[in-house]
Amino acid sequence: YNIPILIKPHQAVFVNRSVTLENIQCFGFDMDYTMAMYKSPDYESMGFELIRDRMVSVGYPHELLRYTYDPSFPTRGLVIDTKFGNLLKVDSNGNVLVCSHGFHILKGEDVHKYYPNKFIQRDDTDRFYILNTLYNLSETYFYSCLVDFFTRCTRYTNLLKGFQHGDLFMSYRSMFQDARDTVDFIHDSGILKDRTIKNLDRYVIKEPNLPVLLTRIKVVAKVFLATNSDYSYTEAIMKYLLENKSGSPKKPWRSFFDLIVVDTKKPLFFAEGTVLRQVDTNTGKLRIGTYTGDLQHGTVYSGGSSDVICDLLDVRGKNILYVGDHIFGDILKSKKRQGWRTFLVVPELTKELQVWDKKKNLFEELKRLDIFLAELYNSTLSRCFCPRGLLLCVCVCVCVQVLTYRMDMSYGQMGSLLRSGARQTLFASQLMRYADLYSSTCINLLHYPFNYLFMAPPVLVSPPSSPPPTHAYACKRNIQMNL
Amino acid sequence: YNIPILIKPHQAVFVNRSVTLENIQCFGFDMDYTMAMYKSPDYESMGFELIRDRMVSVGYPHELLRYTYDPSFPTRGLVIDTKFGNLLKVDSNGNVLVCSHGFHILKGEDVHKYYPNKFIQRDDTDRFYILNTLYNLSETYFYSCLVDFFTRCTRYTNLLKGFQHGDLFMSYRSMFQDARDTVDFIHDSGILKDRTIKNLDRYVIKEPNLPVLLTRIKVVAKVFLATNSDYSYTEAIMKYLLENKSGSPKKPWRSFFDLIVVDTKKPLFFAEGTVLRQVDTNTGKLRIGTYTGDLQHGTVYSGGSSDVICDLLDVRGKNILYVGDHIFGDILKSKKRQGWRTFLVVPELTKELQVWDKKKNLFEELKRLDIFLAELYNSTLSRCFCPRGLLLCVCVCVCVQVLTYRMDMSYGQMGSLLRSGARQTLFASQLMRYADLYSSTCINLLHYPFNYLFMAPPVLVSPPSSPPPTHAYACKRNIQMNL
Amino acid sequence: YNIPILIKPHQAVFVNRSVTLENIQCFGFDMDYTMAMYKSPDYESMGFELIRDRMVSVGYPHELLRYTYDPSFPTRGLVIDTKFGNLLKVDSNGNVLVCSHGFHILKGEDVHKYYPNKFIQRDDTDRFYILNTLYNLSETYFYSCLVDFFTRCTRYTNLLKGFQHGDLFMSYRSMFQDARDTVDFIHDSGILKDRTIKNLDRYVIKEPNLPVLLTRIKVVAKVFLATNSDYSYTEAIMKYLLENKSGSPKKPWRSFFDLIVVDTKKPLFFAEGTVLRQVDTNTGKLRIGTYTGDLQHGTVYSGGSSDVICDLLDVRGKNILYVGDHIFGDILKSKKRQGWRTFLVVPELTKELQVWDKKKNLFEELKRLDIFLAELYNSTLSRCFCPRGLLLCVCVCVCVQVLTYRMDMSYGQMGSLLRSGARQTLFASQLMRYADLYSSTCINLLHYPFNYLFMAPPVLVSPPSSPPPTHAYACKRNIQMNL
Amino acid sequence: YNIPILIKPHQAVFVNRSVTLENIQCFGFDMDYTMAMYKSPDYESMGFELIRDRMVSVGYPHELLRYTYDPSFPTRGLVIDTKFGNLLKVDSNGNVLVCSHGFHILKGEDVHKYYPNKFIQRDDTDRFYILNTLYNLSETYFYSCLVDFFTRCTRYTNLLKGFQHGDLFMSYRSMFQDARDTVDFIHDSGILKDRTIKNLDRYVIKEPNLPVLLTRIKVVAKVFLATNSDYSYTEAIMKYLLENKSGSPKKPWRSFFDLIVVDTKKPLFFAEGTVLRQVDTNTGKLRIGTYTGDLQHGTVYSGGSSDVICDLLDVRGKNILYVGDHIFGDILKSKKRQGWRTFLVVPELTKELQVWDKKKNLFEELKRLDIFLAELYNSTLSRCFCPRGLLLCVCVCVCVQVLTYRMDMSYGQMGSLLRSGARQTLFASQLMRYADLYSSTCINLLHYPFNYLFMAPPVLVSPPSSPPPTHAYACKRNIQMNL
Repeated sequence: YNIPILIKPHQAVFVNRSVTLENIQCFGFDMDYTMAMYKSPDYESMGFELIRDRMVSVGYPHELLRYTYDPSFPTRGLVIDTKFGNLLKVDSNGNVLVCSHGFHILKGEDVHKYYPNKFIQRDDTDRFYILNTLYNLSETYFYSCLVDFFTRCTRYTNLLKGFQHGDLFMSYRSMFQDARDTVDFIHDSGILKDRTIKNLDRYVIKEPNLPVLLTRIKVVAKVFLATNSDYSYTEAIMKYLLENKSGSPKKPWRSFFDLIVVDTKKPLFFAEGTVLRQVDTNTGKLRIGTYTGDLQHGTVYSGGSSDVICDLLDVRGKNILYVGDHIFGDILKSKKRQGWRTFLVVPELTKELQVWDKKKNLFEELKRLDIFLAELYNSTLSRCFCPRGLLLCVCVCVCVQVLTYRMDMSYGQMGSLLRSGARQTLFASQLMRYADLYSSTCINLLHYPFNYLFMAPPVLVSPPSSPPPTHAYACKRNIQMNL
Repeated sequence: YNIPILIKPHQAVFVNRSVTLENIQCFGFDMDYTMAMYKSPDYESMGFELIRDRMVSVGYPHELLRYTYDPSFPTRGLVIDTKFGNLLKVDSNGNVLVCSHGFHILKGEDVHKYYPNKFIQRDDTDRFYILNTLYNLSETYFYSCLVDFFTRCTRYTNLLKGFQHGDLFMSYRSMFQDARDTVDFIHDSGILKDRTIKNLDRYVIKEPNLPVLLTRIKVVAKVFLATNSDYSYTEAIMKYLLENKSGSPKKPWRSFFDLIVVDTKKPLFFAEGTVLRQVDTNTGKLRIGTYTGDLQHGTVYSGGSSDVICDLLDVRGKNILYVGDHIFGDILKSKKRQGWRTFLVVPELTKELQVWDKKKNLFEELKRLDIFLAELYNSTLSRCFCPRGLLLCVCVCVCVQVLTYRMDMSYGQMGSLLRSGARQTLFASQLMRYADLYSSTCINLLHYPFNYLFMAPPVLVSPPSSPPPTHAYACKRNIQMNL
Repeated sequence: YNIPILIKPHQAVFVNRSVTLENIQCFGFDMDYTMAMYKSPDYESMGFELIRDRMVSVGYPHELLRYTYDPSFPTRGLVIDTKFGNLLKVDSNGNVLVCSHGFHILKGEDVHKYYPNKFIQRDDTDRFYILNTLYNLSETYFYSCLVDFFTRCTRYTNLLKGFQHGDLFMSYRSMFQDARDTVDFIHDSGILKDRTIKNLDRYVIKEPNLPVLLTRIKVVAKVFLATNSDYSYTEAIMKYLLENKSGSPKKPWRSFFDLIVVDTKKPLFFAEGTVLRQVDTNTGKLRIGTYTGDLQHGTVYSGGSSDVICDLLDVRGKNILYVGDHIFGDILKSKKRQGWRTFLVVPELTKELQVWDKKKNLFEELKRLDIFLAELYNSTLSRCFCPRGLLLCVCVCVCVQVLTYRMDMSYGQMGSLLRSGARQTLFASQLMRYADLYSSTCINLLHYPFNYLFMAPPVLVSPPSSPPPTHAYACKRNIQMNL
Repeated sequence: YNIPILIKPHQAVFVNRSVTLENIQCFGFDMDYTMAMYKSPDYESMGFELIRDRMVSVGYPHELLRYTYDPSFPTRGLVIDTKFGNLLKVDSNGNVLVCSHGFHILKGEDVHKYYPNKFIQRDDTDRFYILNTLYNLSETYFYSCLVDFFTRCTRYTNLLKGFQHGDLFMSYRSMFQDARDTVDFIHDSGILKDRTIKNLDRYVIKEPNLPVLLTRIKVVAKVFLATNSDYSYTEAIMKYLLENKSGSPKKPWRSFFDLIVVDTKKPLFFAEGTVLRQVDTNTGKLRIGTYTGDLQHGTVYSGGSSDVICDLLDVRGKNILYVGDHIFGDILKSKKRQGWRTFLVVPELTKELQVWDKKKNLFEELKRLDIFLAELYNSTLSRCFCPRGLLLCVCVCVCVQVLTYRMDMSYGQMGSLLRSGARQTLFASQLMRYADLYSSTCINLLHYPFNYLFMAPPVLVSPPSSPPPTHAYACKRNIQMNL
């Protein structure tokens, strides 16, 4: 092994809580969007079209067919308000950061009308639906298309909770429900999976380093696969990813794992789970009854629970590093219920880091302006509200807003996955709470030796982990306006 | 107003999320441990003795009377495991940081025996009881005394879940329940309050700046008091705090507030609440029926809910800054359910900051060692596990443990409220999530003008709010051992 | 033993499901209103006065002091609608049978206004409060006094959900809550118990046959006492009931039982229960710790659960006959959760049977009229709606209503505990579902040998347990009008 | 109309609570097993075979194919214990009346081993599954086949909770789950419906009087159809039932109803329900959006709730008579949540009444024996346990058991739907509590005029609705042994 002397940010593994890889006796992997990365935006486009076409086929207006997927609009982690049809970006406390209606981003005062206090009670899961996964991106965009279409269409009258057309009332809630049902149909009926399998090269990234990663890990630890997908889909994908058609004698994909579990029904898997069945790998069918014997290499199981996995592999939660892409189903649940170590795959990180790099000066400026504003603001007060100072404050505020907007737009129309201006999103705060490690791809583990100590950034600097507001006046004496 | 040029740390207000005081139209205050600071350790000692004496009077052994309150042992925010009788310090994910049995701090391997994976499922509130408030300190200590006594007492046999003595089994659970019931009795029967009122000078800090603070606030915003205490206790305490016996014509304490609400039953107050009644301030009794008229100055109410308060004062949640000491009942609930701005009073902060200041070099050393260890560790790996490197690693590890222990002991036997070594406690993580501002006392607001902009420390530096682990190798070339 | 040749109805034990006494290995008794019968109406009057006086002392109008308890008004098992202030008598499906507002019985159309469909959703326990026990009688009556007073009082305006007086709104809900709190205060503070104990002769019936009953049972089976009362009250009552002051050498009351359990917290007792403690019978205080030894005769316990009782006495649920007065807390729960055999004490049965006996002809007439009405009605239809027939129908309907009212009034103003006209109350249907046996007093067990077979009335007559409607036409040919 | 002079029992409508048809303004009908009666046992056989074949196809042993449906075994309303694999017949309190393991009926002592106290906690719905509907019959039988097969099969070892075969453990729970999933698959995938529609004559009874009934009702009241089936299946079935192929000009089936609602999702329908959509009767697809206009004749809706139905038809719950076959989904819920009048269709009633008629003498004898036994038993006691009397008691007991068994067997192997010997089943007690009327078919309504008064049998005879046990001794003097 070589220690990485110079890792570029997009190759780095980021650390929230220290992990000593040497203590990890077992690596678990989710499949979709973790080992199998789907090609963006082709895959989302395909999902979008399947949703769109089916919605039209069940009676939604044909005009919807004119919409095509625009990857620059949706961001993961948005919240749909099924009552008013808005798409919301919120922070961890339920404060609204961005709010769009269709593709129209609402202004502050309009947000206040919908959400007094600019605040939502996130716990009302019956009303607010969080679009947590990358699978949800096409759905997020489609829902905006729906709202956009009906808002513009002159046949329909716009009402608070939906649209009226003669005797017919289209509530936002029913539109959301129809879209949700359609998405479920596309997943459950196998349409999406069939199309994916038929065009593997088009939709799935064949990462050449994946077999390398798994092979290396297997030398030092146990490896398991735990996916909510069924066996036949899992087999098709994993074969494509791990079995080399050409050249060297083929090593069967199952031999890369000590244990393969399909149909895991996460997050239920991390709680009581379901009955553990064996899969007959010849037919793809479940064996009846529960397997009670020892773990056999290459055996495929269906169902079960995280407790059963620990028993079969004879490992403790703290010694498992689980790599997944679903902040709630994979990471939050395995951490909170089982105390597993967690590694979140965040493909968006590549872009987030690029933007960061390109717009570094914007960030720096924003930061400087923020500090300057506080300073200016607080010092103006001391000078008995001098009019020049106040005017300056207003100017700076506008600058901050313009910069925030420009920064957000660098990521896409709904902004960054992790922040809006200087404020963190719900997704970012969950990432920090539940993911011990995170990176844009699990392949980045290859850049570190397998007994590396990932050390969390020291939070020791100040006892309460946040500096006193002294910086606000400390820097007062050397204000440098650079607008 | 003068802008503070130099605020000492213990006078500072710390910021988690920016608050523009100018937007705050209303300040709300809790009473106990917020406006009324109790004298430590006299007040906790008194509470401890009341609990101890009552427990003995209901049948617990007389030997318990030998115990006296030791303020150096308990820390707020600990968790009692009612099954095994342990006192736990945990992080926000349920990982055990420190575990004591009686006054005996358990070693790592012993903790593992009780808690495989060193992990607890915090959600099991039937088993784990969190000692959230300063009121709980005496209870925390008393419970440790109980476990200590029975563990040492030769009449009793130590079993996993309690103690056996002849036909009698004392489960940890029943001992906890008895202590809990006793604490409730001491609060509900009025014993504690009576003794406090009879010795106000001994138990309550007469903060001279409190009337100043309230007077200044009232110029710029509305002020209300919302306490779970009853009217007569509230009156006695507030009179003592706000009405000057000598000199200047007495200003009645009620005139400091626009609205006074007693018996608030927080956290219920922040949800559906109870019926709002008027208090007859002559008799201290409730008026029957519900008051439906306009807000009258100086009127005292009982019950109600945060929604009713907003209506009566005609303010929105975002424009209220609520100052309280209870991380769950005051801060988490008002933030999560109502979107209020929050100010947490953390009296322990004074000591935490002192220790911090005195032991700054310890912290610096610990930080350096941590980085050095990671560096050493990861570089040792690259050198094919050279024995010298490994030996060094072990040495450093021991150093880190020794330093962590020394640091923790600087705070008290159960360590800091906010951290154990480099890891944050559950309390610290809740403080960061839910308190917009925090300080050791609400009086510290006086050090800032009432339209100050409290700016949160910029979290802009790195997009995912945590630096890449590059520091680990960046510093590799200039290792400086200074053990 | 002698087999009873002639048992009068009020001495009878009624049977819903067969019980072979020979199989009963253990008899359990509740204390209040089961072994200890309170003198009616003196005891209820005392309770009423305590409630009334306290309500006035907390601010309710002095005019309320003019009300005195009237035993002819309330019936057990009524439901308070806390929203509209009505007292309801309902059947098991939630259909309203009788509805009073204050003391005013509402007419059909008025009931419809409050309760469309004359139907309530009983499951809404937040709104509807069932007055299940004899303890609730004074509360029931007091609540009617409250509504009566405010309705008549000219100072208050009558609104749908309460009364307005200037700025003050008295909601029915808050009045109910105040009355409830007062009742709880009277029970919890010990006022009611103190007064009872000081006037045992005035308030408690000294049933001479109770020691006889217990002595006889103890020959053939185990006996336990399980009461929600505390030890000191239990001791005072049981001493009075079981220990003869004069003459024969005193047999201590505890020796009548194999097991005595106080503070049972039924219905919790029949589910998970609480910790079982021993009571120190010298001091009345609880021993600390849990008793784990064998059952000792005459020992008194506090808390525990029905499972613990079964273990201690070494009996199975089916072999226990539990005698209690609380249809929900004693009977429904012990039956549904534990499968115990149940004996419900219904003191009202004496009066119900008296009325029945005296008004037998009324019942017979009502029955005849009902059948006649159906017959007349159905035959009239066949004669093409002949006007004379229809007129007759209306006449009969009025007669039925008049008779029903006269019959109901024979019991009291709110009618019978068990029926309204020909329809069963909720209480009656619960009695039939959950009580295997029932009687006006447990003393009636003395009239049967202790290995008697109580046989349920045969329900064999028709397979679906309800005769086909053939009687409607079968009797058509011999109509006998006897109005 | 003619009043029925002589209705045979199987044509009768039975009455639990009086219903005046004249007050019924609206009749609602379920479709499956209510208007559409399936031909027994052909339909159940088909269902059984579909389940069996699919289970084999997913891996269950081929030997299962040897089983064929035996209509004489299963009874509706049985309970599966998924833990121990038993089929239970219970009464309303959870007492076990009959218990079979596979096809083997367990003896009393064996039942005690599984169920101490012969009692189950019915509320544990995770463990106990009630087979409430006629659809469940084939499933009930199949589950018994499964248990029977594995119990006999020598390859498998019998364990308490399942069967072991090498490394494989077949728990009763997993077998139940597999069977359940299969049944859901057969319903949801449309296999069962397809086969039914393709063989309507073979599986559905073409009741000639159904159009007559609906036509007559429509003269006096509104009529609606509310079915959980989808539109296309509903259309196929109703067309077959209501539209005459030959002769007279075809009246379309939809014109028989004022309102047709498919996909009702009962029991959810009687609570919050789902969104009401219109069905495009040309395509069978749902219209998007919610219909908000007036009710249009012949329009078909999907979803909705009982509240919406009441609004659309402008009727109150008490004025609706709802005719259904599902004791829980149709009858209990509509009664308890909405206060509707209910009519339960119980096709088994025909057979129950036949058996009743044929075995009348058995019932009479059983009744006589019961009374005699009680009498004998109680009088024997009085004679100091004379040995002859005791011997006689034992003889009579055996006779009663033999008679009960013979009686039960007259209905089928699991006995009657309504009783076991003299004890009522859970189903019977629910029927009595929730169904106002019941009959073997809804067609029986034709035997009564549409303004008939169905009068409940008088429950006036004795105040507590159950005679005092006087019969036990009243008949003592004329014992007639006729064994």
